[in-house]
Amino acid sequence: MPPEVVFKIDQTKSMRDQDVPGHNRWHPDIPAVASVKPGQDFRVECREWTDGQIGNNDSAADVRDAKLNVAHMLSGPIEIEGAEPGDLLVVDILDIGPIQTETTGPAPGQGWGYTGIFAKHNGGGFLTDHFPDAYKAIWDFHGIYATSRHIPGVRFAGITHPGLFGTAPSHELLAEWNRRERALIEKDPNRVPPLALPPEPDGVLAGKLTGPELERIGREGARTVPARENGGNHDIKNFTRGARVYYPVFVPGAKLSGGDLHFSQGDGEITFCGAIEMGGFIDFGVDLIKDGMNKYGITTNPVFIPGPVEPRYSTFLSFIGFSVDEHSGENLYIDATVAYRRACLNAIEYLKKFGYSGEQAYLLLGAAPIEGRISGVVDIPNACCSLYLPVEIFEFDIRPNAQGPTMANRGSAART
Amino acid sequence: MPPEVVFKIDQTKSMRDQDVPGHNRWHPDIPAVASVKPGQDFRVECREWTDGQIGNNDSAADVRDAKLNVAHMLSGPIEIEGAEPGDLLVVDILDIGPIQTETTGPAPGQGWGYTGIFAKHNGGGFLTDHFPDAYKAIWDFHGIYATSRHIPGVRFAGITHPGLFGTAPSHELLAEWNRRERALIEKDPNRVPPLALPPEPDGVLAGKLTGPELERIGREGARTVPARENGGNHDIKNFTRGARVYYPVFVPGAKLSGGDLHFSQGDGEITFCGAIEMGGFIDFGVDLIKDGMNKYGITTNPVFIPGPVEPRYSTFLSFIGFSVDEHSGENLYIDATVAYRRACLNAIEYLKKFGYSGEQAYLLLGAAPIEGRISGVVDIPNACCSLYLPVEIFEFDIRPNAQGPTMANRGSAART
Amino acid sequence: MPPEVVFKIDQTKSMRDQDVPGHNRWHPDIPAVASVKPGQDFRVECREWTDGQIGNNDSAADVRDAKLNVAHMLSGPIEIEGAEPGDLLVVDILDIGPIQTETTGPAPGQGWGYTGIFAKHNGGGFLTDHFPDAYKAIWDFHGIYATSRHIPGVRFAGITHPGLFGTAPSHELLAEWNRRERALIEKDPNRVPPLALPPEPDGVLAGKLTGPELERIGREGARTVPARENGGNHDIKNFTRGARVYYPVFVPGAKLSGGDLHFSQGDGEITFCGAIEMGGFIDFGVDLIKDGMNKYGITTNPVFIPGPVEPRYSTFLSFIGFSVDEHSGENLYIDATVAYRRACLNAIEYLKKFGYSGEQAYLLLGAAPIEGRISGVVDIPNACCSLYLPVEIFEFDIRPNAQGPTMANRGSAART
Amino acid sequence: MPPEVVFKIDQTKSMRDQDVPGHNRWHPDIPAVASVKPGQDFRVECREWTDGQIGNNDSAADVRDAKLNVAHMLSGPIEIEGAEPGDLLVVDILDIGPIQTETTGPAPGQGWGYTGIFAKHNGGGFLTDHFPDAYKAIWDFHGIYATSRHIPGVRFAGITHPGLFGTAPSHELLAEWNRRERALIEKDPNRVPPLALPPEPDGVLAGKLTGPELERIGREGARTVPARENGGNHDIKNFTRGARVYYPVFVPGAKLSGGDLHFSQGDGEITFCGAIEMGGFIDFGVDLIKDGMNKYGITTNPVFIPGPVEPRYSTFLSFIGFSVDEHSGENLYIDATVAYRRACLNAIEYLKKFGYSGEQAYLLLGAAPIEGRISGVVDIPNACCSLYLPVEIFEFDIRPNAQGPTMANRGSAART
Repeated sequence: MPPEVVFKIDQTKSMRDQDVPGHNRWHPDIPAVASVKPGQDFRVECREWTDGQIGNNDSAADVRDAKLNVAHMLSGPIEIEGAEPGDLLVVDILDIGPIQTETTGPAPGQGWGYTGIFAKHNGGGFLTDHFPDAYKAIWDFHGIYATSRHIPGVRFAGITHPGLFGTAPSHELLAEWNRRERALIEKDPNRVPPLALPPEPDGVLAGKLTGPELERIGREGARTVPARENGGNHDIKNFTRGARVYYPVFVPGAKLSGGDLHFSQGDGEITFCGAIEMGGFIDFGVDLIKDGMNKYGITTNPVFIPGPVEPRYSTFLSFIGFSVDEHSGENLYIDATVAYRRACLNAIEYLKKFGYSGEQAYLLLGAAPIEGRISGVVDIPNACCSLYLPVEIFEFDIRPNAQGPTMANRGSAART
Repeated sequence: MPPEVVFKIDQTKSMRDQDVPGHNRWHPDIPAVASVKPGQDFRVECREWTDGQIGNNDSAADVRDAKLNVAHMLSGPIEIEGAEPGDLLVVDILDIGPIQTETTGPAPGQGWGYTGIFAKHNGGGFLTDHFPDAYKAIWDFHGIYATSRHIPGVRFAGITHPGLFGTAPSHELLAEWNRRERALIEKDPNRVPPLALPPEPDGVLAGKLTGPELERIGREGARTVPARENGGNHDIKNFTRGARVYYPVFVPGAKLSGGDLHFSQGDGEITFCGAIEMGGFIDFGVDLIKDGMNKYGITTNPVFIPGPVEPRYSTFLSFIGFSVDEHSGENLYIDATVAYRRACLNAIEYLKKFGYSGEQAYLLLGAAPIEGRISGVVDIPNACCSLYLPVEIFEFDIRPNAQGPTMANRGSAART
Repeated sequence: MPPEVVFKIDQTKSMRDQDVPGHNRWHPDIPAVASVKPGQDFRVECREWTDGQIGNNDSAADVRDAKLNVAHMLSGPIEIEGAEPGDLLVVDILDIGPIQTETTGPAPGQGWGYTGIFAKHNGGGFLTDHFPDAYKAIWDFHGIYATSRHIPGVRFAGITHPGLFGTAPSHELLAEWNRRERALIEKDPNRVPPLALPPEPDGVLAGKLTGPELERIGREGARTVPARENGGNHDIKNFTRGARVYYPVFVPGAKLSGGDLHFSQGDGEITFCGAIEMGGFIDFGVDLIKDGMNKYGITTNPVFIPGPVEPRYSTFLSFIGFSVDEHSGENLYIDATVAYRRACLNAIEYLKKFGYSGEQAYLLLGAAPIEGRISGVVDIPNACCSLYLPVEIFEFDIRPNAQGPTMANRGSAART
Repeated sequence: MPPEVVFKIDQTKSMRDQDVPGHNRWHPDIPAVASVKPGQDFRVECREWTDGQIGNNDSAADVRDAKLNVAHMLSGPIEIEGAEPGDLLVVDILDIGPIQTETTGPAPGQGWGYTGIFAKHNGGGFLTDHFPDAYKAIWDFHGIYATSRHIPGVRFAGITHPGLFGTAPSHELLAEWNRRERALIEKDPNRVPPLALPPEPDGVLAGKLTGPELERIGREGARTVPARENGGNHDIKNFTRGARVYYPVFVPGAKLSGGDLHFSQGDGEITFCGAIEMGGFIDFGVDLIKDGMNKYGITTNPVFIPGPVEPRYSTFLSFIGFSVDEHSGENLYIDATVAYRRACLNAIEYLKKFGYSGEQAYLLLGAAPIEGRISGVVDIPNACCSLYLPVEIFEFDIRPNAQGPTMANRGSAART
């Protein structure tokens, strides 16, 4: 028997117009929309994270103009019977994939997905100082494989996963999130892009709540962008088929919600919406470890066991970066963020030698199954990170040789 | 025919007392001690990085009191015929292992190695605020496997690699290193541990140079601790048997040097001397890509292709961390260093539930083949990193279950 | 866009009653039912191989009494435009899975599948002399995982694949098949089970052909049981998602047909219907290498490239067998069949020590992702084969230890 | 501490002339030459299997004329203290490699090894009817990699292993071996090559035994060619670094012996001496499971757990064969030996399209890390086997494409 669909989506409609709408803020008071028992398999359907603002076309204007207040559009909350604060919620990702219901149409997940470079003034990304403008690549799905007319010469098996799932925070935990993130924003309130996103009543959705209750969610509810203690927007590409995640439970019933499905993504999801974004479905199995947070000392973040069917690549070209700022030449102290940025930039410079534009290379590193590794974080003053690029995803050999790289016309990404 | 030994070590003696001594600073004017041709296989023997200061015993006093000015003791420089600035030096790691010559004795690599937590006042480490005192674990080698009387219950295959190899910097590049690192030190000159290490005449070794020439190397030569443009102390565990590294060449002859062999190491080498440290040998093959830096845009860091015989683990328990400071609750902005630190701390708390001390867990994460991943670096404000711990290295099942962890007496690390 | 469904199945009906029926014999004159172009993605839906004779229940009576003349029920033939004899047909398996249309009901593939031990008098199996009676295990699908109420204590990710696909034979090739198989049958025409199966008019289906045309197919058409030059019933578990197969083309249009989908299978498919049998769908991409058979010397069998997403197991317990008959003690000369049989029997004896019945162990080895290896075939007189059993599929540790195996009540297989 | 060398070889001398000679027959009465305790690590040094008859040159005359009665030259027997009949001897392969003592010279293992096609009249091989004459390839070792001047264009990491290790048979077991093998020989006593090899006094070596005792070993002792209940000449390439083998114990002290080290080998070792043959060393750890044969039902063959550091290849081109004789067109009944032979022949025909001779291809398939799989053994009448050839071992792309294979001059194997 297929798993029961406990959260159903009509992909021809906005999340707001579903019979049972989801939500786009974290808050303990958003009512559960379904209930499942430990031991049960069930299916959750999801809208693409922007609720369908991005189209299958050759212009990045939609990325440039995307309204981010509506994101992420989450499915849930799902109540797990018997879950109590302090438990660990055991979640098996039994299967996941693009939209299975309305399989053709304009919604990402209907046979296609996209990767976007968000403009610096509208979200930005990991390399936004180098790539401040909006770009886009459309990916066509061929079963497990993706190809893009905007990045020819590559084809890879997606390591499909949900960017975002988590349990509901308690009121106390939510208050702590708001405290610490407001304090960060206060350091530079006018920064573009911002340091963090405060609660935002504009665009809020909280299931069927309306009026003052909805307004309260808008005023208090945490934005869904970052990962936090409840899971949230991990964007860990290895939450794929067969993985098992142990989420802390902070409220009765656990209240599992999520979405932001990715056909594929590289470690870091560096273009901000760097994955191949799509709507689709995810099949879960759930169980509980009573008092598991205390038993195992799991208090601040979930733990997980990756699944056994990740795409198997074995030959990588690996790029290294260290913590010296590429603009100023300033040496940072053990800064893994800068080190990984340098590794990404090194990979982009390399790929440009084969004829890709910087934007194509950037989009590719966001979407393809690259691995980002913390290599050294003790050798003062330089953190050292490395980026593993699977050579098998290219239709030509990208490894260095005596002849030098084969330059070719490799088309261009969608731009504004 | 076995590869010619172009750098020979008598492991009963200090590096200073070898017939052909190595060096412990980076400087273009340290004379080459041997010359090889492209296409040639050759062997380099290495002393353990501290030149034998640490003993196979149950006290960490030697770690506490280790003199760091003498490190790292490097073998080389080896001149590669025909190498010119702008080339890429192709280096194959054909084999690597512990000491094959004097196989018994007090030198690390003679059937054993060690992992050390360096004290905060003497080097520190990634978690030095949590673990400020010196600790040590001795590891016994059983062929490809390591076990430790100080961390019972684990046994793993080492992913043996050199922590440190690189080409010599040009004078210009060396000057730039000194500039940027001095500028960093100036930000907090009295910090303990320091932000970076300036040139240090005390303890300098530069082959057979003496007098004013040696003094100049001491005054100008870069310390060997960090990774830089020439490679250097990468501490990338995947530079293992079968790997191919492409190093930028900055001086005529390339001048390849290195050492700091590791029987095993986890990503990050988090205890500072977190690997299983040893002396030993490394067999290289070399070739050149003329003008390769320009052809491939490889200017600021080496690239590499990992080898095909890394230990193959498939089941991991993965810990997640994000960029909120664990002491203050301060939310940092996309700080992957803090995120990985939190992931490490989460893993340590978990392992303590099975009976390990925090120090044992810390030592284990430094030495065992854990993977550190950059998971998300765009989801403001939280960077998200993950730490993959292979469950197969434990003699008991560490995965969460309904019964809870099996607490046991797991001994203790060597302390002062 | 999802791939076009070029062969559609209503899983509530027999293959005979579909709008466009398939076929159950190999013959060049069975008309194509659809046509695709090189470069096109398309979907083929399939009935389970016996056309639904086996039920989701706890009796093996249906296996005992299954009518084998109707098998295998194949979907197709699909014409590939431009394909000519001598070409290689490049077939990408883009995706594959259980039934996506009528997802609940009595057809295998509707959330469940089965493994059967066929009785010696009705098909037999690899170990039919040891297990002459009909048994069955029902498997429940949980996304990528399968579990069975008849074999508790195991859970594994299926390496889903089609047991049987191939191109149509030419008349000449068909005649050769009939010649050589009849010659074999003649050696022992009354053997039970038979040495081979001759053409059989009873039960024949050939699309919409009727009357004398259908009779001719029945008289001449090759049975679908074995693998042959055209591909056919390979039962190679590694024809999974992402695999690419190069089939020889023997007739204009190639005429690709197949079915017999397996949720999972061990190498050898040793219980005869040893896979987890199901109906479902398979998504293909196709292309042509003109004159490829000659160019590459591929004349007698397809070649293939396994896909990148096979389940990743790394710890195996491996059983060895050699070519000495287990009943008589007779030493056979380099007989890999006997060697693998002994390896299977050794594995079964081992698993019985944990409480499984021989039939449960036999069913498990047929269905789980075990690997069967040819280890030595030159060391006269003994061929040596080995069977790799992934230890991760068991909920308990099956590796030998000093205490001995944990015997437990492990239920029982479905029997008659 | 390195493991104690309990069996030492001077590689400049024949096994007969060692201070402590080994043996070349299986017999319970060959005296143990060393004794080890459970829990102990120890090293065994080995001569190449023919005791140095094959040279590093470009003629295969030495292979053609090799005296096979002296093989295999085994190191041992090693007594394990406390081992009793019925126990399982747990053997860890901690490390293994070429000769570490006299590293240059004429003995295989001194930086080089060889693969031989034995002539039909002198041993033969799996494809001896196709390749009846002696050929040879010399392989040069480059750390973990091998290359051959006789098979240019390939380079691969060896999966180094012992071809042959085992425990001593009891008198009863030895008698049974002699019974069943003599019965096989009697079926065709004059066959070339023979069906099996009877005891042979000529050339016998049994440690220091001489006179009537040695004669008795010669008359009764089993030849070392096949794998049997005690282990023996498994030629399982996966007995590599890190593997654990559980051997049945048939005599007090177990009496472990072996040798025939291989730098690399493909499944099946198809050219008879198809591995890359060498002398060298192997480091063992041992332990006992008392009464383990009965506890685990391990009576007729060892079981083993492969190690975690096998070379990691992920892209294979796979060839299929079925059980139809390639000469006569006769259809055999479920004959996996013939099926694998056909798969081998298909691979050879394929490689010839790139310019290799048949002999080069045959030698390569024997030596490189190919996998031989039992794919189907129930689909009457055809067994189906497959041969997985890693594409990464070639310096050019061997996968089929529209242009066809790149033919080139690829030199030639050593011949007579």
